[in-house]
Amino acid sequence: MSDCVFCQIVRGEAPAAKIYEDDDVLAFLDIFPVSRFHTLVIPKIHYENFLDVPPTLLSKVNLATQKIALVYREHLGLNNFHFLTNCGSQAQQDVFHLHLHIIPRHLGDGNNVIWQKHPEFRGEFDAMIGQLPKIA
Amino acid sequence: MSDCVFCQIVRGEAPAAKIYEDDDVLAFLDIFPVSRFHTLVIPKIHYENFLDVPPTLLSKVNLATQKIALVYREHLGLNNFHFLTNCGSQAQQDVFHLHLHIIPRHLGDGNNVIWQKHPEFRGEFDAMIGQLPKIA
Repeated sequence: MSDCVFCQIVRGEAPAAKIYEDDDVLAFLDIFPVSRFHTLVIPKIHYENFLDVPPTLLSKVNLATQKIALVYREHLGLNNFHFLTNCGSQAQQDVFHLHLHIIPRHLGDGNNVIWQKHPEFRGEFDAMIGQLPKIA
Repeated sequence: MSDCVFCQIVRGEAPAAKIYEDDDVLAFLDIFPVSRFHTLVIPKIHYENFLDVPPTLLSKVNLATQKIALVYREHLGLNNFHFLTNCGSQAQQDVFHLHLHIIPRHLGDGNNVIWQKHPEFRGEFDAMIGQLPKIA
């Protein structure tokens, strides 16, 4: 897409600090880093989010993510990460080209995922499952 | 592992509200839900985290995650999610058996991922890349 900044990076029209590249996947340092080596892994083809990407390409993105993080562990000694993708504007997605975040974490860095626990929802579990078809 | 609660769920020794199951993967509602249909997707075999699981099994877990979320979109009208796995005690991992969170999000639910932006790290990008081997 012409106005997608990640597509512009793929085409070489916008700069990026590239970490990894193959035929299908590109990874680069996040320009708004929350920690050192905060990395984005994207498919080169434009898909909006985790739900819209074909499964085969999703696997390639995911396996590249693991490969990169293993190098970070081996060469940088990083052992603590969030692996995250935000899907939808109500889930803090801001660039609508699928991207997986590799977020190295350190004690006290403040990059917490806030969990608003709702134990009362447990009482609804049977009703919730009743809303779903059998998933196969 | 005998003392791993997720292994106990796999073996049927601990209860769970199951959403999906195949030969390799199990998914169930999180007992500490942060939103309705907050779901955990795990490999049946015990691996500690995203870095330790073999790539083939990681793909199976990831593709089951997508499959489940697509059903949530189709049958529940959910369109906004975090897809997250925490890796390491400094990254909020609490159960040390790999689990991918499917977290449905809604405006105002308070389940934000906090981003402590550090634009000053951009000046270190070249030095960071210099610390890494070429990743292939």
